[in-house]
Amino acid sequence: MEPNWIEIEKQAKTWLVEAGNKIKKALEQPFTIDAKSGPDDLVTDVDKSTEAYFYQQISSTYPTHHFLGEEGVAKELTSLSGTVWIIDPIDGTMNFVHQQQNFAISMGVFQDGVGKLGFVYDVIKNELFHAVQGEGLFVNDKKVESVKERPLEEAIIGLNANWLVENHPLQTNLIELVQSCRGTRSYGSAALEMAYVATDRMDAYISLNLSPWDYAGGAILLNEVNCLASRFDGSTLSLLDKGTMVCSKSNLHQTLVDRLQKGASE
Amino acid sequence: MEPNWIEIEKQAKTWLVEAGNKIKKALEQPFTIDAKSGPDDLVTDVDKSTEAYFYQQISSTYPTHHFLGEEGVAKELTSLSGTVWIIDPIDGTMNFVHQQQNFAISMGVFQDGVGKLGFVYDVIKNELFHAVQGEGLFVNDKKVESVKERPLEEAIIGLNANWLVENHPLQTNLIELVQSCRGTRSYGSAALEMAYVATDRMDAYISLNLSPWDYAGGAILLNEVNCLASRFDGSTLSLLDKGTMVCSKSNLHQTLVDRLQKGASE
Repeated sequence: MEPNWIEIEKQAKTWLVEAGNKIKKALEQPFTIDAKSGPDDLVTDVDKSTEAYFYQQISSTYPTHHFLGEEGVAKELTSLSGTVWIIDPIDGTMNFVHQQQNFAISMGVFQDGVGKLGFVYDVIKNELFHAVQGEGLFVNDKKVESVKERPLEEAIIGLNANWLVENHPLQTNLIELVQSCRGTRSYGSAALEMAYVATDRMDAYISLNLSPWDYAGGAILLNEVNCLASRFDGSTLSLLDKGTMVCSKSNLHQTLVDRLQKGASE
Repeated sequence: MEPNWIEIEKQAKTWLVEAGNKIKKALEQPFTIDAKSGPDDLVTDVDKSTEAYFYQQISSTYPTHHFLGEEGVAKELTSLSGTVWIIDPIDGTMNFVHQQQNFAISMGVFQDGVGKLGFVYDVIKNELFHAVQGEGLFVNDKKVESVKERPLEEAIIGLNANWLVENHPLQTNLIELVQSCRGTRSYGSAALEMAYVATDRMDAYISLNLSPWDYAGGAILLNEVNCLASRFDGSTLSLLDKGTMVCSKSNLHQTLVDRLQKGASE
């Protein structure tokens, strides 16, 4: 039986607002900060409690649905069958810790691997980017009509400077890309940066290493406004495994894939 | 006779709000975009009309005051004697054109070269960073109590990726700095990025080439919260000539100057 997407969308929005309120409240008090994979990979108890809140709501309301979150409160996901919620409770934890802003809740709801509902919620700015498959992209319920296509030399690309100073096989390609575009920006939240591409604030966003919860929500937003998100080689993003990610307005996408792949098969 | 700073502050705020309203109105209609020094150095008729508005208000209200602005509506400034207003009508013009947000009006008012009043106004977010010499820094009239000092390895540095990919004598120093810090951000407006350091959203901001109107307002903000702004070699910023700029929380500043100068005199 096809899920009731109108009801699920309404539920998801209610939970996002409630989670946002909890996060704002948590910011008024001290919170615990830990490091995960390295000293700059931060997690707080607010990330964990926010994910637990979503998991609790979803699993009690929709017991047949599946759940994948950054902090691993649910059991590991191995299949995309059925309805799957992919959530990053706080995307941009370093901003959360240092700035108390410029972070987002990212949420994608998928049916058998197909994106149905996408949400990126900038809690502090109270800006909700929200897409329904086939019905378009909305910013706080205002519909986004279209994005403007620009050539690479007029494009603003979201890219973290760290990828330019680390020694890896694609470093030269990335440096040449930065030299070729109009400018770069770095906001420190993949979900927000994908939402910015979808709303024409940037033309592309590139990362060498993202996890499904980082891009699941954003990819659904982009899909509704003629933008593309893929691995660097142009292949489909996996919802179970991490890897590279390039997203942009559709005309620019092939140029970026070609530039990123240059020399890769030689 | 010492100027009446309370009255000047009140006037400046009134003009900022009025200029912000004009800019918001201008964004509802098409505007003309031109290139200045190169294809990525943009200027619009809104930059020019906003500067003309400030010049007109200031010169009619305070005929003895002097004026320096990015778009050059006043005659060239050669001395800092007396009361000088240094204004960038739209700092972050590329953001203004591409994003219609993340730009600011920057304003510094100086008496014989000493910063008296500083303003950085994020028009779209309606966030006014505002400092009065000796009385502190305010964000929309809320006083900023202090910034948190962090060592380099925990610092977030504002730095445009372009400085990492262009061949210049300090490229290696900048790359090593990025490798040493916790993370980098790039928002595309020097004035806003200086305001973000002053309000603890970043720990430092670095640029190889800024003009007095880019940093005049921000430097006054920083001065009120125990932060420092200087040339890369630690020397005082000129209010008449452009050059490098590094600003940060005070403890971090010497580390950054040392890192940026490494090898420079060898």
